[in-house]
Amino acid sequence: MKSQVNRLLFSLFAICLIRMVTTLEGQTATSPSVEQWGIFEISLKGPSSGNPFREVSLTASFIQGDQTIQLAGFYDGDGIYRIRFMPEKIGQWHYRTKSNHADLNGREGAFSCVAASASNHGPVRVRNTYHFAYADGTPHFPIGTTCYAWAHQGDELEEQTIATLKRSPFNKLRMCIFPKHYIYNTNEPVFFPFERDARGEFDFTRFNPEFFRHFEKRVGELRDIGIEADLILFHPYDRWGFAVMGSDNDDHYLRYVVARLAAYRNVWWSLANEFDFMMNENRQEIVELKKRGKQIKLKTLADWDRFFQILQKEDPHQHLRSIHNGSILYNHTKPWVTHASIQNGSAVTDYGRAELLRDVYQKPVVYDEAKYEGNIPRRWGNLSAEEMVHRFWEGAIAGTYVGHGETYLHSQDIIWWSKGGVLHGQSPARIAFLRKILEEGPAEGLEPIDKWQDQPVAGKKGENYLFYFGREKLTSWTFQLPKAGYEFPAGTKFKVEVLDTWDMTITLVDGTFEIKPNDNYTYISDHPRVKLSGKPYMALRIRRVPF
Amino acid sequence: MKSQVNRLLFSLFAICLIRMVTTLEGQTATSPSVEQWGIFEISLKGPSSGNPFREVSLTASFIQGDQTIQLAGFYDGDGIYRIRFMPEKIGQWHYRTKSNHADLNGREGAFSCVAASASNHGPVRVRNTYHFAYADGTPHFPIGTTCYAWAHQGDELEEQTIATLKRSPFNKLRMCIFPKHYIYNTNEPVFFPFERDARGEFDFTRFNPEFFRHFEKRVGELRDIGIEADLILFHPYDRWGFAVMGSDNDDHYLRYVVARLAAYRNVWWSLANEFDFMMNENRQEIVELKKRGKQIKLKTLADWDRFFQILQKEDPHQHLRSIHNGSILYNHTKPWVTHASIQNGSAVTDYGRAELLRDVYQKPVVYDEAKYEGNIPRRWGNLSAEEMVHRFWEGAIAGTYVGHGETYLHSQDIIWWSKGGVLHGQSPARIAFLRKILEEGPAEGLEPIDKWQDQPVAGKKGENYLFYFGREKLTSWTFQLPKAGYEFPAGTKFKVEVLDTWDMTITLVDGTFEIKPNDNYTYISDHPRVKLSGKPYMALRIRRVPF
Repeated sequence: MKSQVNRLLFSLFAICLIRMVTTLEGQTATSPSVEQWGIFEISLKGPSSGNPFREVSLTASFIQGDQTIQLAGFYDGDGIYRIRFMPEKIGQWHYRTKSNHADLNGREGAFSCVAASASNHGPVRVRNTYHFAYADGTPHFPIGTTCYAWAHQGDELEEQTIATLKRSPFNKLRMCIFPKHYIYNTNEPVFFPFERDARGEFDFTRFNPEFFRHFEKRVGELRDIGIEADLILFHPYDRWGFAVMGSDNDDHYLRYVVARLAAYRNVWWSLANEFDFMMNENRQEIVELKKRGKQIKLKTLADWDRFFQILQKEDPHQHLRSIHNGSILYNHTKPWVTHASIQNGSAVTDYGRAELLRDVYQKPVVYDEAKYEGNIPRRWGNLSAEEMVHRFWEGAIAGTYVGHGETYLHSQDIIWWSKGGVLHGQSPARIAFLRKILEEGPAEGLEPIDKWQDQPVAGKKGENYLFYFGREKLTSWTFQLPKAGYEFPAGTKFKVEVLDTWDMTITLVDGTFEIKPNDNYTYISDHPRVKLSGKPYMALRIRRVPF
Repeated sequence: MKSQVNRLLFSLFAICLIRMVTTLEGQTATSPSVEQWGIFEISLKGPSSGNPFREVSLTASFIQGDQTIQLAGFYDGDGIYRIRFMPEKIGQWHYRTKSNHADLNGREGAFSCVAASASNHGPVRVRNTYHFAYADGTPHFPIGTTCYAWAHQGDELEEQTIATLKRSPFNKLRMCIFPKHYIYNTNEPVFFPFERDARGEFDFTRFNPEFFRHFEKRVGELRDIGIEADLILFHPYDRWGFAVMGSDNDDHYLRYVVARLAAYRNVWWSLANEFDFMMNENRQEIVELKKRGKQIKLKTLADWDRFFQILQKEDPHQHLRSIHNGSILYNHTKPWVTHASIQNGSAVTDYGRAELLRDVYQKPVVYDEAKYEGNIPRRWGNLSAEEMVHRFWEGAIAGTYVGHGETYLHSQDIIWWSKGGVLHGQSPARIAFLRKILEEGPAEGLEPIDKWQDQPVAGKKGENYLFYFGREKLTSWTFQLPKAGYEFPAGTKFKVEVLDTWDMTITLVDGTFEIKPNDNYTYISDHPRVKLSGKPYMALRIRRVPF
């Protein structure tokens, strides 16, 4: 009798929780209505004994018309289970849960998905083979930066990082889920992802919900300021053993992260930072872990393939998936890779290099790590601001995307590249200028024009040409456009603007350039000369009239 | 009774033929003995009615100890069937045939495989991931050239080509099986690969054995002068319809070519020249074929994959396999590709570009087409000799291999790149110099040292460093070797030689360079300066003492 009453009370409580739908967009709504690409969350009370993370299964089916999406819920501690869903289609959705525990099984409900608010463009997807767009069709030109461990630094610094990002040109941030151990990174994180016993040992089978609630809050804040969170799921910079947990714990962790975070529209999955360093038993961090008696389970290539397949299977929203390399590249032609995330210290010093990886992968190429602006005594962290900006431009005219990072020495080791804080460098302002140029350019993204012919020009054939001259100090430029298979109608006219990528100026050149055929490969103009300043880092924007 | 006598007579005849083993190395042997990697050939008399190419099946099993190799024979016209085998293992081999025709079925015999002669190193295989070696362990550094249609030009010109090649530095030749139609290539070939009827129409189901006997003779001649025949199986430059025969005829042709040619140890399979142009219905040659009423069966990506699989299955000797691109790259990470054969007009202008394709493919990269030395009014055929040689060197220090071609205008359109003849250019002598440097270098092949760090140096860490400065006009060089993970013992000494890659000189620098640690990344020397001439195209060879 008592148990029946309890069950009744519990059912009423559960219904209340379901009604208390939170959109996680900052406000709590009592009406079951969520905007498109927002988060619909179900909270259910269930068992807290044993190891709920491992022993309780919970999934839900979300149904609209003939579409059914199934996804996993997760245990959030204190007997609370949650299911999160990002509706991608406007209209009435119905759901029903399934669990191996009666309290969580067969729960049903409905909610309404309404139009997205103005700043919500949905998740980013691949578009035009080499480029990206938000789900609503708005182009997304990734202008990324890197603060690997910013979400483990405590509220004060984390809030400062958010404030800095809000004023910055960046719309994507690479960040680790696990805390980081590395040079300039020796402080303890505020939260740990797993439960820890009195001796300080972690139980990799039991998550610490407080860690994840905090982490999610930061991901949501990034979303609210228009920044994609490129979440690094594994990395080698570890003194706690999270890098070598073994495949069972790895897989379980991946599934948990997907269940918690896949409903955030701004999530990208980056399987690793420097995945190949996690496979190398001679890697310094791994040697240190061994010395301290930790059990070491190195990852294999098969592990990485399986992780991708888990993401493919478990993420109902199919967020972008990639993996970042140390010195060995992952085979990004594999079908589960949506775009190539590349570390290479020299590929974006030259558009001809940067473009080659597009050719081989036939997917978007994001040079997430191309060394950092800074002054640390490491060659990966001492680029001048000019060089950092130059790399962004070389990457851009290759039809690829480059990532920023900053490593200026700091008395408390608060270095942007890892901990966030404030930016000290001179590249971000210039990167903002490039972002503006990209946003004013073809919505389809810049395509190299006449590739493999050493023409430093990208754009959209026949309409929009962006030349970038790098370190060349030209005092004039002879008007010439590559034919590259495009036949211009007679009388086609262009306007030319000179862009100073460092001084961030745009100067319209007097007159109009009417083109005429030249040889098999080029068009020229009767108005042939464009005067240039003799400074480096100059670009030309040449657009068809009218535009 | 008459048929029994016939059968007896025929059996005796067949036995005679089997005894008349020809090694195809130029002499006919009466004893059944063949050198390792030579050709053992069985000739059998069989039916000539119907279409023997399609209707008669013939295979043989070659057995030594517990190894059995099965391969296909082929019909050579006039009722003669042949089976060719390249023994890779010394010792006694036994064979037995199988056929759907009684006369060809169950024939048995044996032969002895003896040690190879001095100039026979066996077929070329991949070694050390990015490099090649002959089967006997001798390194093979591909120094290729291109005479696409040389074997279709008639004896006089073909013999001249062989004579030229014999004096040249080249050890690999790209050449088409099918004849070629293109600018400067409008002459009719001497032989056609298929039977032709009175109206001039080809029967793609019936081969012309005369064509193949001629072609094989040329392949054998290349072998005898130490040149690998990189056989192009399909190409788009076609006015006869061979490029668009449809998959059944394509597959049959491939199997026939493998049966005839796989026993030649110097064969490499190149599935296509510009495979992607054969998939494009707007390609000029395909439009022309259509206009003339030819049936067009464009190839698909699935066709190319299947062709590779046919080669994998049918070639008992597993010759090297690749495919050459137009503007779209084939996915060379696929398992059946042994090495990447690349056309790219700009990748080898810069070692940093050239090296990237090694990273992605993790296989040898051969830039078979990097534009040609010449003066034709096409941008792919007007490189200076200096530029051609420069590209060979940039490719070399990237740990890759570059191919040569020559396109100087000629009054009878006898242009080396396609028809052979004689060489007019200045690059071959310099390419010979590079070949010598490669052959004196590490047997494992040149490996980029400190890749992605913009150091123009390759070699073998700790032992052998080859710097190449390209167009830089240095008057001196400060001794510095990249550490790149190698710890030098104290007191390690080096000798330095200055190489002028254009003037083909090697000058030993006075003194010995003892190295000492500098920073995280480099070693320097107390003897710091190397004087240079201020000329472009200079290189340094730095070898550990003693060497």
